[in-house]
Amino acid sequence: MSAPVAIVPVAIVMGSQSDWPTMKRAAAMLDELGVTYEARIVSAHRTPDRLHAFGKGAADEGFKVVIAGAGGAAHLPGMIAALTHLPVLGVPVQSKALSGQDSLLSIVQMPAGVPVGTLAIGDAGAANAGIMAASILALEDADLAERLKAFRAAQTARVAEKPADQ
Amino acid sequence: MSAPVAIVPVAIVMGSQSDWPTMKRAAAMLDELGVTYEARIVSAHRTPDRLHAFGKGAADEGFKVVIAGAGGAAHLPGMIAALTHLPVLGVPVQSKALSGQDSLLSIVQMPAGVPVGTLAIGDAGAANAGIMAASILALEDADLAERLKAFRAAQTARVAEKPADQ
Amino acid sequence: MSAPVAIVPVAIVMGSQSDWPTMKRAAAMLDELGVTYEARIVSAHRTPDRLHAFGKGAADEGFKVVIAGAGGAAHLPGMIAALTHLPVLGVPVQSKALSGQDSLLSIVQMPAGVPVGTLAIGDAGAANAGIMAASILALEDADLAERLKAFRAAQTARVAEKPADQ
Amino acid sequence: MSAPVAIVPVAIVMGSQSDWPTMKRAAAMLDELGVTYEARIVSAHRTPDRLHAFGKGAADEGFKVVIAGAGGAAHLPGMIAALTHLPVLGVPVQSKALSGQDSLLSIVQMPAGVPVGTLAIGDAGAANAGIMAASILALEDADLAERLKAFRAAQTARVAEKPADQ
Amino acid sequence: MSAPVAIVPVAIVMGSQSDWPTMKRAAAMLDELGVTYEARIVSAHRTPDRLHAFGKGAADEGFKVVIAGAGGAAHLPGMIAALTHLPVLGVPVQSKALSGQDSLLSIVQMPAGVPVGTLAIGDAGAANAGIMAASILALEDADLAERLKAFRAAQTARVAEKPADQ
Amino acid sequence: MSAPVAIVPVAIVMGSQSDWPTMKRAAAMLDELGVTYEARIVSAHRTPDRLHAFGKGAADEGFKVVIAGAGGAAHLPGMIAALTHLPVLGVPVQSKALSGQDSLLSIVQMPAGVPVGTLAIGDAGAANAGIMAASILALEDADLAERLKAFRAAQTARVAEKPADQ
Amino acid sequence: MSAPVAIVPVAIVMGSQSDWPTMKRAAAMLDELGVTYEARIVSAHRTPDRLHAFGKGAADEGFKVVIAGAGGAAHLPGMIAALTHLPVLGVPVQSKALSGQDSLLSIVQMPAGVPVGTLAIGDAGAANAGIMAASILALEDADLAERLKAFRAAQTARVAEKPADQ
Amino acid sequence: MSAPVAIVPVAIVMGSQSDWPTMKRAAAMLDELGVTYEARIVSAHRTPDRLHAFGKGAADEGFKVVIAGAGGAAHLPGMIAALTHLPVLGVPVQSKALSGQDSLLSIVQMPAGVPVGTLAIGDAGAANAGIMAASILALEDADLAERLKAFRAAQTARVAEKPADQ
Repeated sequence: MSAPVAIVPVAIVMGSQSDWPTMKRAAAMLDELGVTYEARIVSAHRTPDRLHAFGKGAADEGFKVVIAGAGGAAHLPGMIAALTHLPVLGVPVQSKALSGQDSLLSIVQMPAGVPVGTLAIGDAGAANAGIMAASILALEDADLAERLKAFRAAQTARVAEKPADQ
Repeated sequence: MSAPVAIVPVAIVMGSQSDWPTMKRAAAMLDELGVTYEARIVSAHRTPDRLHAFGKGAADEGFKVVIAGAGGAAHLPGMIAALTHLPVLGVPVQSKALSGQDSLLSIVQMPAGVPVGTLAIGDAGAANAGIMAASILALEDADLAERLKAFRAAQTARVAEKPADQ
Repeated sequence: MSAPVAIVPVAIVMGSQSDWPTMKRAAAMLDELGVTYEARIVSAHRTPDRLHAFGKGAADEGFKVVIAGAGGAAHLPGMIAALTHLPVLGVPVQSKALSGQDSLLSIVQMPAGVPVGTLAIGDAGAANAGIMAASILALEDADLAERLKAFRAAQTARVAEKPADQ
Repeated sequence: MSAPVAIVPVAIVMGSQSDWPTMKRAAAMLDELGVTYEARIVSAHRTPDRLHAFGKGAADEGFKVVIAGAGGAAHLPGMIAALTHLPVLGVPVQSKALSGQDSLLSIVQMPAGVPVGTLAIGDAGAANAGIMAASILALEDADLAERLKAFRAAQTARVAEKPADQ
Repeated sequence: MSAPVAIVPVAIVMGSQSDWPTMKRAAAMLDELGVTYEARIVSAHRTPDRLHAFGKGAADEGFKVVIAGAGGAAHLPGMIAALTHLPVLGVPVQSKALSGQDSLLSIVQMPAGVPVGTLAIGDAGAANAGIMAASILALEDADLAERLKAFRAAQTARVAEKPADQ
Repeated sequence: MSAPVAIVPVAIVMGSQSDWPTMKRAAAMLDELGVTYEARIVSAHRTPDRLHAFGKGAADEGFKVVIAGAGGAAHLPGMIAALTHLPVLGVPVQSKALSGQDSLLSIVQMPAGVPVGTLAIGDAGAANAGIMAASILALEDADLAERLKAFRAAQTARVAEKPADQ
Repeated sequence: MSAPVAIVPVAIVMGSQSDWPTMKRAAAMLDELGVTYEARIVSAHRTPDRLHAFGKGAADEGFKVVIAGAGGAAHLPGMIAALTHLPVLGVPVQSKALSGQDSLLSIVQMPAGVPVGTLAIGDAGAANAGIMAASILALEDADLAERLKAFRAAQTARVAEKPADQ
Repeated sequence: MSAPVAIVPVAIVMGSQSDWPTMKRAAAMLDELGVTYEARIVSAHRTPDRLHAFGKGAADEGFKVVIAGAGGAAHLPGMIAALTHLPVLGVPVQSKALSGQDSLLSIVQMPAGVPVGTLAIGDAGAANAGIMAASILALEDADLAERLKAFRAAQTARVAEKPADQ
């Protein structure tokens, strides 16, 4: 009975505890969309063995999509993508000196052969990684597709016609 | 009989004919991985009605993943993402004056709520969009998953141990 | 009796409520110059149908100039420009991580065929969008032209000869 | 009888002869749209008196819109805008070392009070300055409005459905 | 008796009152080196006539060096340089959105024929403009040369051997 | 007999064959300084297992310094640094779209705990990685120290007093 | 008996007192790894003679590695590297206007012939300069090598499996 | 008899022979304006002793203005400025990977206390350094002032009214 495989389709991994305030936006979005996930710290630079093991075993653990966030010389998403054939979504965490420009380029400029689907710098990117993971899983999960469409419709409906405090 | 849905799971759309030399790398990769696709020109700026119709109808046409490439003020990927709940992959085409820095920021910096999974600037990004689309489809297509793993293994095997002409 | 057309010649549209603190500078400038306007929220990404309807109907609503402000992957000004032949002025709202560099490039780097007249990042740009809209309308409104010249003259007169607190 | 005023509504000014290969795209677009113009060289740095005279006299010469292009420390558009209340459109000419990033920032980052409606770097920006000038003039010229709409419709119609050489 | 001409060899001009907190560093440095100066507000964009008059008359007023500071689309230093053959030193004032990157490029990237000697962004640049003006005047003022050398020697002597609070 | 350890103290690794035209400058410099090396291709993304094995085994293979070059999302130097305590020197290879700005930031912006000593973008950086490796090895190799000093002295002596073709 | 030479193998030099809050991270790391050092202020611009003397005498003083930190037009690391054949590690101190982008480029972009091994901007870079100095010294100091490996292992062990406050 | 002092008031120094194609524009401009100069190669990094001697002796050699050009981590202008109280003009030579952005920041971002008057990147900057040196010398040389004014007037007169090949 490999039910657990189906139960946790998304892994949210991040390079350090300090990335969690950003990456929890991905978690919150998955919660809202009813998608289970597991959040782990996997540091490409401080725990390279854990990275190697995680990347090679991600598919066997039952994950279907990996969301990886990191800042600065952000190697985590690309190295996971090198180790698995699963789709990997990368979140550039806003860095101190360069505001995430380093994170963005380190994640998005992957060479041909090993893709990372990269989202925006910071909170918006993390939230969108959650939505995109859901959109991928929804391709074969009609219930999730309905929840995703409802979320999108509600998002549209919340936009006011005119600015408040005009 | 909804066979066509299964037959063409990927749409490759681009802003203009001039994007095709880049975007055909996505097509070539999908060919190599045995994934069918349809390539179309949809200009966000010159054919906004076509964009609107394409985005709203993409799911009903049976597409599962949309690959969208554009350069400069590259609005195509984000606007398609605004119109569909399908996963959208964005390819920043290298622009003349700013070498694709404008394309990259226009595509990747989407606000929370509407994600575009962005790949690298230019040819590498287009090829990787093809691979990433395959990795998404492979989640529910065991044969494709095998072809993808074989592609990745062959890619690994082709890397020489030492530089030639040393 | 199409008087309303003449009464509200400027539309100020913005991607979200959070753009209003910037965009209200455009409104304040139009107030000062005696030009009426209507402020609306039109999100390219969250309300693409509203965007499409607004852009296609802007001329029929009687608007003569559209001021559009957005931040990040700022698609709103360019997409409105794609949908109308009216002059569109774009205001890059200062974004969090990249300080509006993304907003600026997303708005200004439009392809040949669909122009957006882009102003400076942030408050100064919004105020200037108001002035520029007035300068366009003043071409056929001699009273407004006089008010605009008086505003410019007063602005010149307010510049002190020497720095205070020297 | 101020017929000449109506005959040449657009001035195209540029900082040097070397800007003409870019700025002639504005001229070509105005030709296509049936708008007359006059092209002049006015160097902010080498002919500051000519600049001053041009800016102060532009309205009296009968011009309604000024298109100004320059590269590097591109002061021409902003200085003209300082000298006239007419709408000024700025074209950042692509510079050698910095590819027009200097031109763009020098033109677009105007302080509150003196707007320049800035177009894209290089040829696309010049062409779009022509179109935007026409869109401004079309507000009170129904024939030009029709020609502009026809131009836009033809532009839309020319976009092929699929990439050639697929 | 044009003694006053000799008495005030340096003009410090700035685009607005808001530049004074930066530009007063130039004034303080000239005070320290015993060089007299006159500080004025000359806005390239809001007072173009004042700019024109100042630039053309600067040499006749007896100024020998002009220090000009501005931010954003910083046209003041370059336009003064266009109007006088005196040496002009430019100070890029730190701007809000782009931290003075726009100011720097707008000032330093002058075309061949019209130089502006540009200093660093912000306070350090303003202080250095004062020192550089003094170094120019010191070429024909032996007393000032001695004061400048003494200032430089004192500056050297103030550098501690080791960091405090180690 | 661990003689081989002393014989090959430097590893030059690169992400792909296309990096060799850059990285051979490191090899040439080591040749000139009489330091032996071994050049290998280790792709972080295409051969992650080889990377992992190389990094963990580098010290046991007898290497003392690792020179690693890569372009784009250049993860190779940092990942090797994560896997070994040996000093790692990084060379940002000039990339196509972004001229090595992505390579530089991906290599240099390592988090605290895992250093990469980064050299300049391109050929100069590769040559300097060779010199720096020699300077490290020369700390305990008096002969190499003499060769390095002689190389530096010869380099100084080759600088002409005046430009040729004056 | 020149024992002191062996006792202080690392020099930490910085351009001014204001760099110490950054550079003390290098000192703290060396303390943690049991490597002695000496911290000095050597300003390339305000104390060029001290710079010249320090650079030429660094090897004779017994130093083996020089860590040099500076901000803005950061010439200190490169000028020391020009004056000694010892390995020089450069730390770009975060600058006010440009967040250390100027510091980074001024330090890393050295011409072929004179290397500076550059670390990340700011605190992380300073800490890593300490670690890298230790890794160089550890090549011939087995005890230090053990301490370095233990430090790295402890660093790895401190990484939690999951984010706290999840 | 210190006649030579008056005869050669300007030193043009550059980091390497490869800078001469740029720096000869300064020489040509000085030739045109009738100002004598001496061109030398002084490499900050390869000939630091020559740099030190040159900087300290520049005033005693009779030079009044130093023009210094360099590319990449361009330390030459700033280091000369650290060693002399003469006015120093800096020319950022266009570099290969970063097009002179590194050269510009390395030269212009000097700390308070040691100024370098920086000109534009490349040929225009070199020419302008020549003009600015002349403008400094013209403060006490009425003949040169006349030649400079004539040069400026001729430059103005050469600007055509309209673009050729229109």
